[in-house]
Amino acid sequence: MEYLKTLEDKLGVVFKDKKLLRQALIHRSWLNENPDSGFENNERLEFLGDAVLELAVTEYLYKRYSNPEGELTNWRAALVNYQNLSEVASRLDFNDFLMLSRGEAKDTGRARQVILANAMEAVIGTIYLDQGYEAAYK
Amino acid sequence: MEYLKTLEDKLGVVFKDKKLLRQALIHRSWLNENPDSGFENNERLEFLGDAVLELAVTEYLYKRYSNPEGELTNWRAALVNYQNLSEVASRLDFNDFLMLSRGEAKDTGRARQVILANAMEAVIGTIYLDQGYEAAYK
Repeated sequence: MEYLKTLEDKLGVVFKDKKLLRQALIHRSWLNENPDSGFENNERLEFLGDAVLELAVTEYLYKRYSNPEGELTNWRAALVNYQNLSEVASRLDFNDFLMLSRGEAKDTGRARQVILANAMEAVIGTIYLDQGYEAAYK
Repeated sequence: MEYLKTLEDKLGVVFKDKKLLRQALIHRSWLNENPDSGFENNERLEFLGDAVLELAVTEYLYKRYSNPEGELTNWRAALVNYQNLSEVASRLDFNDFLMLSRGEAKDTGRARQVILANAMEAVIGTIYLDQGYEAAYK
């Protein structure tokens, strides 16, 4: 899994469990084409990462701003959305690491943005499991 | 704030910042009747506690069950809802500690359940700030 080294450098994290990082980048469409790989897709990690990100952004807003709850809720919704997440994932070159079916690999529009955003959450979930909350918060 | 000692015993937590625990129990209706108290209502703490609870339940389900993400999402929704939260809050006798307007104090139906559930989340937010994630997770 030497190729993941580049991604670790970009993330600034050295993972204890590299397999978990690989799993965060496996879209279910790839598993459909590779049913005997023995790998799992990234959806459970995304489920976890979504909640980690939610708390991290919530805590950041809570501690930094004394505005009422309604405003903080609106700001959080504006910050955490698939466009922003996919943009961060693109900047980290997730496109080079994602494992997709050949069909999905051709689609570079909105569907790809959603896949990138989900992979970003899955990677956040991986950082949380592998390194703890503080690392994921950063 | 001696009266909060009983609640601390029930929660099994000794708070460093007792004022924060008191704030978790202040409903905005009480502030309307006591505009010069200098206190804040519990809504910002609830905003934070909601996200802490979400991560705690998500992490619990992720680590304990290997089911697909869709099932875990459904289970989480079944676990985290205002009925369950208000039930826990009732068992901890939050009704004895809530600061409500006289109008709200008379209503013991669904509106009270929601107030109890929100206070439960605010108290979870307080535990998180005062004691850290591990204590809140428990």
